[in-house]
Amino acid sequence: MAKVRALVLEKQHELQLRDIELPLDVGRGEVRIAIHTVGVCGSDVHYYTHGRIGPFVVDAPMVLGHEAAGTIVEVGEGVSHLKVGDRVCMEPGVPDSSSRASRLGMYNVDPAVRFWATPPIHGVLTPEVVHPADYTFKLPDNVSFAEGAMVEPFAVGMQAASKARIVPGDTAVVLGAGPIGTMVALAALAGGCARVIVADLAQPKLDIAARYQGVIPVNIRDTNLVEKVGELTEGWGADIVFECSGSPKAWETIMDLPRPGGAIVVVGLPVEPIKLDIAAASTKELRIKNVFRYAHQYERAIALIASGKVDLKPLISQTFAFDEAKEAFDRAVEARPQDVKLQIRVAAEG
Amino acid sequence: MAKVRALVLEKQHELQLRDIELPLDVGRGEVRIAIHTVGVCGSDVHYYTHGRIGPFVVDAPMVLGHEAAGTIVEVGEGVSHLKVGDRVCMEPGVPDSSSRASRLGMYNVDPAVRFWATPPIHGVLTPEVVHPADYTFKLPDNVSFAEGAMVEPFAVGMQAASKARIVPGDTAVVLGAGPIGTMVALAALAGGCARVIVADLAQPKLDIAARYQGVIPVNIRDTNLVEKVGELTEGWGADIVFECSGSPKAWETIMDLPRPGGAIVVVGLPVEPIKLDIAAASTKELRIKNVFRYAHQYERAIALIASGKVDLKPLISQTFAFDEAKEAFDRAVEARPQDVKLQIRVAAEG
Amino acid sequence: MAKVRALVLEKQHELQLRDIELPLDVGRGEVRIAIHTVGVCGSDVHYYTHGRIGPFVVDAPMVLGHEAAGTIVEVGEGVSHLKVGDRVCMEPGVPDSSSRASRLGMYNVDPAVRFWATPPIHGVLTPEVVHPADYTFKLPDNVSFAEGAMVEPFAVGMQAASKARIVPGDTAVVLGAGPIGTMVALAALAGGCARVIVADLAQPKLDIAARYQGVIPVNIRDTNLVEKVGELTEGWGADIVFECSGSPKAWETIMDLPRPGGAIVVVGLPVEPIKLDIAAASTKELRIKNVFRYAHQYERAIALIASGKVDLKPLISQTFAFDEAKEAFDRAVEARPQDVKLQIRVAAEG
Amino acid sequence: MAKVRALVLEKQHELQLRDIELPLDVGRGEVRIAIHTVGVCGSDVHYYTHGRIGPFVVDAPMVLGHEAAGTIVEVGEGVSHLKVGDRVCMEPGVPDSSSRASRLGMYNVDPAVRFWATPPIHGVLTPEVVHPADYTFKLPDNVSFAEGAMVEPFAVGMQAASKARIVPGDTAVVLGAGPIGTMVALAALAGGCARVIVADLAQPKLDIAARYQGVIPVNIRDTNLVEKVGELTEGWGADIVFECSGSPKAWETIMDLPRPGGAIVVVGLPVEPIKLDIAAASTKELRIKNVFRYAHQYERAIALIASGKVDLKPLISQTFAFDEAKEAFDRAVEARPQDVKLQIRVAAEG
Repeated sequence: MAKVRALVLEKQHELQLRDIELPLDVGRGEVRIAIHTVGVCGSDVHYYTHGRIGPFVVDAPMVLGHEAAGTIVEVGEGVSHLKVGDRVCMEPGVPDSSSRASRLGMYNVDPAVRFWATPPIHGVLTPEVVHPADYTFKLPDNVSFAEGAMVEPFAVGMQAASKARIVPGDTAVVLGAGPIGTMVALAALAGGCARVIVADLAQPKLDIAARYQGVIPVNIRDTNLVEKVGELTEGWGADIVFECSGSPKAWETIMDLPRPGGAIVVVGLPVEPIKLDIAAASTKELRIKNVFRYAHQYERAIALIASGKVDLKPLISQTFAFDEAKEAFDRAVEARPQDVKLQIRVAAEG
Repeated sequence: MAKVRALVLEKQHELQLRDIELPLDVGRGEVRIAIHTVGVCGSDVHYYTHGRIGPFVVDAPMVLGHEAAGTIVEVGEGVSHLKVGDRVCMEPGVPDSSSRASRLGMYNVDPAVRFWATPPIHGVLTPEVVHPADYTFKLPDNVSFAEGAMVEPFAVGMQAASKARIVPGDTAVVLGAGPIGTMVALAALAGGCARVIVADLAQPKLDIAARYQGVIPVNIRDTNLVEKVGELTEGWGADIVFECSGSPKAWETIMDLPRPGGAIVVVGLPVEPIKLDIAAASTKELRIKNVFRYAHQYERAIALIASGKVDLKPLISQTFAFDEAKEAFDRAVEARPQDVKLQIRVAAEG
Repeated sequence: MAKVRALVLEKQHELQLRDIELPLDVGRGEVRIAIHTVGVCGSDVHYYTHGRIGPFVVDAPMVLGHEAAGTIVEVGEGVSHLKVGDRVCMEPGVPDSSSRASRLGMYNVDPAVRFWATPPIHGVLTPEVVHPADYTFKLPDNVSFAEGAMVEPFAVGMQAASKARIVPGDTAVVLGAGPIGTMVALAALAGGCARVIVADLAQPKLDIAARYQGVIPVNIRDTNLVEKVGELTEGWGADIVFECSGSPKAWETIMDLPRPGGAIVVVGLPVEPIKLDIAAASTKELRIKNVFRYAHQYERAIALIASGKVDLKPLISQTFAFDEAKEAFDRAVEARPQDVKLQIRVAAEG
Repeated sequence: MAKVRALVLEKQHELQLRDIELPLDVGRGEVRIAIHTVGVCGSDVHYYTHGRIGPFVVDAPMVLGHEAAGTIVEVGEGVSHLKVGDRVCMEPGVPDSSSRASRLGMYNVDPAVRFWATPPIHGVLTPEVVHPADYTFKLPDNVSFAEGAMVEPFAVGMQAASKARIVPGDTAVVLGAGPIGTMVALAALAGGCARVIVADLAQPKLDIAARYQGVIPVNIRDTNLVEKVGELTEGWGADIVFECSGSPKAWETIMDLPRPGGAIVVVGLPVEPIKLDIAAASTKELRIKNVFRYAHQYERAIALIASGKVDLKPLISQTFAFDEAKEAFDRAVEARPQDVKLQIRVAAEG
């Protein structure tokens, strides 16, 4: 254990940068990482404003932050693919590698996953962390720390795109142009879609998404989405609909969007059960695929960023110094529509 | 057109065996079939008792019946795979072969499908019908007409089993032990499941299903299904859950049945939208697959019956003569739990 | 029938632009198209130089050309999705729509396919052709005729990319940087690959492929491909290997390229059977997928071109006037490595 | 280490039952098992007769046997799903659980797998062994030790059936009716095939396979297999062909067996590279799937045996006492066509 500086959520609404005891010993198969950049995620903000997410309650001080990149400063025994000085990003969730789900290759659905900044596990808004090497990924030279810290949210998009079983040239609809919707749209385009119709009520969000080639923005405040999709697909419908809004309202007309034999991929999580029109889903023989976090996506995500096929830099709206970490969260609470991703630079330089 | 005897639904509640004008000319690519046996289906009965199913309203006299087998008595031009005397069964739905859905190989979701005994299309409770040869299938010598008339409902089960993407040795749950649930259970077992847990409230239905090797009957009146599935799978859950009850109640606890990464295949159609717990479906990354009728299943269904892997004969509860056709329907209206399938023998002999 | 000008292959080595009788009557479901641009394909050239391809022998004069775009000038009965003036491109192969393969959605493997410029079917290096509307596809305004005539070879790449079942972020290897290898590389990148390692002996071909983001060119004259792939994938291997060279030599070391559980997609056709190392393929549990032409790819290919995700224009090396059609073929016979695609503009203007 | 009795292969041709030092300490996550029954596998026999299999050379005394069932006699720390007295069977191969292949869920292609009776790893023809609990599977009460010892070879069939992606009602061909071909045929039938055409030259082997419902035996000494398959499938071809003979000759005509779009699953391993007709495979767009051992198949295999869907007992040709272990191997060397599986009962009783 060592006394280190960290952004600590003491309890709901109470956040401060202070010293805290954190374990920094490096065990077998682990590495110690000097944190460079950490992104502010909606879930971090939600713990700040609500003190809980579903069954996960903040009932003891907890360090926030789970979208992180940094530099290896110590390597434990039995680690061969990483060395001191490697620039890396990390998966925040570590499963039990001997669980049935992990052994089947789907560690994301292992109920025993320990996830950064999910009570009672501390997050990484602090100068150093220890992490299993197996969940730590080297960044190529042409991928910055800021991009490295974007791999986590982009991996959510990648999981959705992978589970969608996109066929090259597909047309997709993304409902919701928030950070996750935008990540899903980019992953869907990188993953084989010819075009992605992104729907939202907030024009600034649509304007950001529309900068990407292949995105067709639709402001559902003034445009009928079902008609628009019909028009763009000669009445056939979209191959895939990604539900990223988490809004029960989205489910009211969602069945009119996909083509016969198409798919709905569910990323957004409504708080309450939604109403599902089975008869409509049946007539089209729809496939509804739910996704949860991600598994085996980091290397794929990094490869797409490194090759230049995916450019996440325009989505970084502002970067705060570590000293301004609380300000970053207060800004995030405002939820300005033009803010996609706020980041905190923990490292002093570099 | 010819004046022939048929079981005609004049309007809701009014059924009679009488003469009616039906087209019997054989065109190119068509065959004329002497009907031997016709099964009574729940949808036929529903038109009788309700006069409609959803948007399909009986507003003119309509011949009932769509589960049929018979003998070829005339062959049109351009038909090469059938000849007079062949024993056959027929798909009741004929799509537009040049529709986009048909060309993609999923003709069942072609909205232009014309389906026997679905207004305004006449059914086949009549001595002869004309049908496209492409939707008429030869029965092997060891498959009886009675079994041939069972191919249609069994094809519904086959479609569910096919879309489930069963992996050999899977454990499935079937919710609902009515005729369709039973067909789905048999198709799932023939299609690779090691065991199928069949759940219902009606013991006589479960007793019939339990005759088949691999079926584990669960009466949910006295047994907690979630606990039972957990016990049988060491807490892991079922690989596939087939929802065949159409009951909104089934959806309340359905998410507790499948394993992480498992599937729900939806066959039963609730009248109203159901409540779906997205959060629960998400945590397990479930796949929900809706199915609609069937496509390309007849030859597969016949092959399984012919090889002896599927025995549908125990499901034929009683056979009525053509003269007793109305009695067959009145018996079906009673919905006795021990009745799985009632059939009407249209042919005088053979 | 009408007497029209066409580029006629009289027999092996004997090509001339002359008048010939061709059928131009428009039947039900057909359209007449004024040809604008036709690409020169390797198979056209092969008939010119060899007089045959496998079992297909040129034993009567045959019009060449099958990669075509043009404008609708007449619309037959029963055609609703096209009108006079529409700019279109066409699939050169027309299957029997009632064949078993077509009905299953894989019309490309229907043995009865009639294919332009494959004896005894005439091609389209002539001012007008009649074609089924179902195999004629509208070009969006931002897709030129020249690009439209590239859809056919690109569809070959799309079929390979589709059948490869790419997972977003995959690493692929393409063996052979000829026109087809390049099309496959572009389709693989558009279809979800993060990077495509393109291997060839001819540097000018590699230089053209290397213009595209995500392509990693490898000249196997001076670089060991197996080592290079190992280096780029940390010893794991490529997710997918597309064999596009048709060279028996490629098969000697191909098993060292894919990762465990990876795939080899076979596009290139060696004349003789190749030697396959089953033991090596087995240890890695490889999947070897053969592809043949394409099915259902035109709309997908057009969507990717129209959205800007795929730019085929840099691959059009030179355009010849219709009067110079023979010169185009003689140039193609030279097989200059820097020539990817030669096109012939049949239309006088526009 | 303990001195125990075991069937030791001293070197090629030299086999004896003698005492040998073997490690019997139970570590964390391990169990000690009293061996009851061990099957004699072709690979054991091959080491006996040839002293090597490919790169694996017997250059030190090695205990034979890897198809085993027994009873738990000691349980290590951290093992929760097994207890003393449990009847079990074991996977003979143990991978490195942190390898990339293992983490992706395909541990069978992990090059670091340690496999019983594969030099330099000892096998289990000895009274007790220590094994990881994760690769030890409980047998239900209605599955005997003899059947438990059959799970290993049946798992090979299950892997083939799983990777074949059988669609319910498929028609398969199995080339080769040896023990593995027979296991594949049974797994294919249990896994969804309606019928399996089993081809061989040895009538006694075909006679054994023919006892199973759904098997169509074809003696290729007197019947043309291609014609027979065409006749049984109306000229369409088989959905799946399982190559289990390992014979180069089988590859000469194999392309004529599958239907367009069908699959060849390769289980048999020819010593030398075989000749593959790419052009024929291409025209049909065939998928060729190689399989290697098995992963995640034991529980599925046991479930199929326990439910009664698969009966392996008729395949146990003779059982030898432990004292007669060498006799069992000498009998196996004879390769009598009516011998499918020989077993050795290591336990004195029970």
